[in-house]
Amino acid sequence: MRDRSPKTPVWQAIADALRADLSEGRHAPGDRLPTEAALAERFGVNRHTVRHGVSALVAEGLVRRRRGAGAFVTATPTDYPIGRRVRFHDNLIAAGRRPEKRLLYLDTRSASAGEAQALALAEGDAVCAYHGLSLSDGQPIALFESLFPLSRLPGIVQALEQTRSVTAALAAAGAADYTRATTRLTAVRATATQALHLHLTEGDPLLRSSAVNVGEDGSPVEYGRTWFAGDRVTLTIDA
Amino acid sequence: MRDRSPKTPVWQAIADALRADLSEGRHAPGDRLPTEAALAERFGVNRHTVRHGVSALVAEGLVRRRRGAGAFVTATPTDYPIGRRVRFHDNLIAAGRRPEKRLLYLDTRSASAGEAQALALAEGDAVCAYHGLSLSDGQPIALFESLFPLSRLPGIVQALEQTRSVTAALAAAGAADYTRATTRLTAVRATATQALHLHLTEGDPLLRSSAVNVGEDGSPVEYGRTWFAGDRVTLTIDA
Repeated sequence: MRDRSPKTPVWQAIADALRADLSEGRHAPGDRLPTEAALAERFGVNRHTVRHGVSALVAEGLVRRRRGAGAFVTATPTDYPIGRRVRFHDNLIAAGRRPEKRLLYLDTRSASAGEAQALALAEGDAVCAYHGLSLSDGQPIALFESLFPLSRLPGIVQALEQTRSVTAALAAAGAADYTRATTRLTAVRATATQALHLHLTEGDPLLRSSAVNVGEDGSPVEYGRTWFAGDRVTLTIDA
Repeated sequence: MRDRSPKTPVWQAIADALRADLSEGRHAPGDRLPTEAALAERFGVNRHTVRHGVSALVAEGLVRRRRGAGAFVTATPTDYPIGRRVRFHDNLIAAGRRPEKRLLYLDTRSASAGEAQALALAEGDAVCAYHGLSLSDGQPIALFESLFPLSRLPGIVQALEQTRSVTAALAAAGAADYTRATTRLTAVRATATQALHLHLTEGDPLLRSSAVNVGEDGSPVEYGRTWFAGDRVTLTIDA
């Protein structure tokens, strides 16, 4: 393999390559992985090393071994479309997954300079902050922080407490038809706290999205930041 | 800070937060960072710890100190729009950057099963593979591998050798008006080889994009994978 080096153990490079196959959608849950012999030939290594690589995916819950039958794909990353209308619940249902949101905490505070800029507020204006965890089929896939301008959405705190859903709460607060203005994406390292919530290891790669949703009159109704677990989510953009 | 933990040193959490400010576009090159006293207050730590965090950004070349005047932003991540027409050269010019591509190697080989699927070819059909490095103002920002179907683009190898540009080579090969069909994004760890090319540390977070470009008749003309350095590029999607 081209990327093998003294620092990356070969079994880990094999695990990375197999994980990439899963995230590119080359195998569906239930599919059997190629045999150890076939993988040994593909990677030019012995079967013991292949087994070590596959074991890493087993440990991550992506693959399960069945005695005498080989290794089967148990989970693949959730496809998550990013476009003009981004709806967590609808996105996951469309991907054939069971969506779930857990509230971590909800509070009201003053907007920082950057937050005020994103929401077209004055620094210090009151915002409602919703911190939560998104799950797909019971597996945590993302942490998020959504900020709402209280002046524009007076009923948002109660609506979020009742519904836990950004979409439903914005509808209750009078902004049903919000759309995504801009999304900014980059890759960052998981902090210890993020790793704990997402069942990852500190330093693991996260895909961070920052986005502003605007109401029908074009004024911002939500400034959201989401940290997706890199191994579990593939963002898709259809042109 | 909420994400502080015994495992992440405080100065590093401060560096992460300041880096996030830069990648969110809160400071432009030439801007002065807030004073050490202001940052110490913001993060609830002493100035010594703030200085340590800022020094990490200085070491990364994002910030420069001027004696007696404070710390100034020298570089911010390059904004890179992802949409229906994605052109590296035009994207960087629009962001006020100097674009450059370096050819790492160019070869002709058989398509793997996954590659054939992406390009609507039969497994084993010949593809041209262009591996290269993308730079912004002389700084490496991404590694890429672009695959082209030789049967559809017979002159592509010579055109790539001459132009080094995917856009120019596709135009020369008769596919000037290609558009992006789908983009898939996730976050991965840099391998040792990738880290070497991108001047990063092995394991650093990369944003990986996989995309298919199609010609005017809808048939795939390029299957490209790009690994962007997380700290140096922000992908933007405008709705």
